[in-house]
Amino acid sequence: MVTLDDVRAAARRIGAQLIETPCAPAHALSEQLGCELYFKLENLQRTGSFKERGAANRLRLLGEEARRRGVVAASAGNHAQGVAYHARRLGVEATIVMPEGTPLVKVDATRRFGARVILTGANYDEAWSYAERLADEEGRILVHPFDDPAVIAGQGTLGLELLEQVPDLDAVVVGVGGGGLAAGVAVAVKSLRPEVAVYGVEPASLPSMREALAVGYPVEVPPATTIAEGIAVRQVGEHTFEVAREYLDDVVTVDDEEIAEAILVLLEREKTVAEGAGAAPLAALLHGRLPVRGKKVVAVVSGGNIDVHLVARILERGLVKSGRRLWLEVVLRDVPGALARLLDTLAGLGANVLEVHHGRDNLVGLGEARVELVLETRGFNHVEEIEEALGAQGLAWHRLRRSPPARPA
Amino acid sequence: MVTLDDVRAAARRIGAQLIETPCAPAHALSEQLGCELYFKLENLQRTGSFKERGAANRLRLLGEEARRRGVVAASAGNHAQGVAYHARRLGVEATIVMPEGTPLVKVDATRRFGARVILTGANYDEAWSYAERLADEEGRILVHPFDDPAVIAGQGTLGLELLEQVPDLDAVVVGVGGGGLAAGVAVAVKSLRPEVAVYGVEPASLPSMREALAVGYPVEVPPATTIAEGIAVRQVGEHTFEVAREYLDDVVTVDDEEIAEAILVLLEREKTVAEGAGAAPLAALLHGRLPVRGKKVVAVVSGGNIDVHLVARILERGLVKSGRRLWLEVVLRDVPGALARLLDTLAGLGANVLEVHHGRDNLVGLGEARVELVLETRGFNHVEEIEEALGAQGLAWHRLRRSPPARPA
Repeated sequence: MVTLDDVRAAARRIGAQLIETPCAPAHALSEQLGCELYFKLENLQRTGSFKERGAANRLRLLGEEARRRGVVAASAGNHAQGVAYHARRLGVEATIVMPEGTPLVKVDATRRFGARVILTGANYDEAWSYAERLADEEGRILVHPFDDPAVIAGQGTLGLELLEQVPDLDAVVVGVGGGGLAAGVAVAVKSLRPEVAVYGVEPASLPSMREALAVGYPVEVPPATTIAEGIAVRQVGEHTFEVAREYLDDVVTVDDEEIAEAILVLLEREKTVAEGAGAAPLAALLHGRLPVRGKKVVAVVSGGNIDVHLVARILERGLVKSGRRLWLEVVLRDVPGALARLLDTLAGLGANVLEVHHGRDNLVGLGEARVELVLETRGFNHVEEIEEALGAQGLAWHRLRRSPPARPA
Repeated sequence: MVTLDDVRAAARRIGAQLIETPCAPAHALSEQLGCELYFKLENLQRTGSFKERGAANRLRLLGEEARRRGVVAASAGNHAQGVAYHARRLGVEATIVMPEGTPLVKVDATRRFGARVILTGANYDEAWSYAERLADEEGRILVHPFDDPAVIAGQGTLGLELLEQVPDLDAVVVGVGGGGLAAGVAVAVKSLRPEVAVYGVEPASLPSMREALAVGYPVEVPPATTIAEGIAVRQVGEHTFEVAREYLDDVVTVDDEEIAEAILVLLEREKTVAEGAGAAPLAALLHGRLPVRGKKVVAVVSGGNIDVHLVARILERGLVKSGRRLWLEVVLRDVPGALARLLDTLAGLGANVLEVHHGRDNLVGLGEARVELVLETRGFNHVEEIEEALGAQGLAWHRLRRSPPARPA
């Protein structure tokens, strides 16, 4: 099993290659959650995630002969960039196998770090199999994304940093996919400070560590999707499981809706960009899944490599939920000037019109027109003000289904 | 004039009240820009901006009598939160005058810090006049957002931090609105390290410091808008001007398009949320306005309090610009199954359909239908692949005007 000594050795080996990412206090959220919360901003690592730690340690442990032969990894994400970046720094040739359909941004980022990229396989498992064959055929070293003691020890260096940055912490919360980060952090933290709680957080759709802990060995959970791609792993590792069973205090789950909310909170309140896996710990805290009231807690924001499409969608949903983007249907008399008057009213109230669809159909009477509006507002108070003004003009209106059915408390 | 001693005294006075925000190396951007770039992440300050520094210093310099009477400030943004937060910590009553129409989020945030909020005035100038009257009538102390030596000295503490965090830096780039931050940082940096360049960046639409430097005294520039609200100031201060004239190496300008691009780069590449003012320094660097090649440069991300509406819009524009969101018009034969076949083709290529508008109008022939599509793609290569596939099916198509006219180099 990986030990504190392994982690310490990893820290000495790779310390100079990595950024000691900040561990920033979260003022407003601490107040809201009734604990003293810090975010370990591992999204500020050079390739945007903690994966570099394990990759750097694994690569630096290779002998000269192995370094000459080069390394292979399979990944569509953070592991790819971590391996590519540190291989280049060491002058080792890296081949990264990525599933077909990997977003171009990620392919480009990996190539920018100097790796040879092979796009093949319909999914991660197929890419992995190809990487295994390639390693065999070309005599290259295969770098596993999590189930390798050297990788786990590398990830554990994050745990050592935490303890120095927040010396009197009570708990650490960390996302769990294959379990590499959780295992590494748990070894480091529990060996030095057994009284500190270490919690894991998994996607509800892929609770591979919870299942493994329940049955006593790693098992494969059914395939499923999650917006937390970084921790979408169907079966945890042998090595990571062994450590997790020994050291993790609990593993809880969060669903996509909760993760999306946490991404938005991190963006809006903490000014930081987290990917789904990186926001999962906060999601668990926001939903009271962990006993941290009154405690000093570090939530690990493990990475920030999120697709901009997804950020755009999460922002839009968040705006709708908070009343700041409003879909409204208004019935007008079908006479010249009616739409102009409506828009004047909205302008007077400071509501910004994003979209207007004006038409006649059989949902409204003859002589009436139906207008669908998308508005930017200042929130629910403003929405009510707008609705009152419409009512005062004798107009029928209702919020469309994309707005929440009732005002949240 | 404000001196290094004033800044040092401010640092001793307020150090414990503020977060020493990280100064993170920007790996990928350094490579792109040919310099060694760091971001001073002042958006991680508790209220999301540097404004706390000046406010905290000003408030802590108040005598007992003044503290009992309370303070007044006019601001729709960061100054409001900075004053409110530090007033509460000192047990001083704060009244913040905000212009009508201030986004509810900002009003709420200011109230959460315990301040009395008065919404009045059509714009900032009117709110300021009201605050002046209120201070007179109620005998409260008015806290100016920038033109006050105590405020400038407080902002200067950021300069002292920089020098410790990146000891061998060559240049600092900082946004300029009223000039408080730029003046404070310039005093600190130039007094200790005269060889370090200090550059200011202003919105092109409101170049109040450039104008002031050109004519030799603060002048009012014509009213204009910018997405960098935090540095939208029509006339710099007397005190700030005096310092800026003495110490600033240059002041350059950036336009809204450039600022929006920098916000997107910070979000996507650096995983951090900047408001317009906070992204202005990077905008200047991205557009080669400053002689920093080969230098060690710190760009100050002065704040992260950006309206989520605006972030959503910037993301969307960025997606369109990079080909990842595509508006496409396709002409189909108006027969059953034509639309289904088109959507099948798109699905097979991995293009995600966000919107479909299908209709007939006089832009297409009789027997034809026009489809407008909004698609999520993986970038320009993917767009070309899609367009080829449509062509191979004999379909006429063109990108709609919201897509860029030509593929960028």
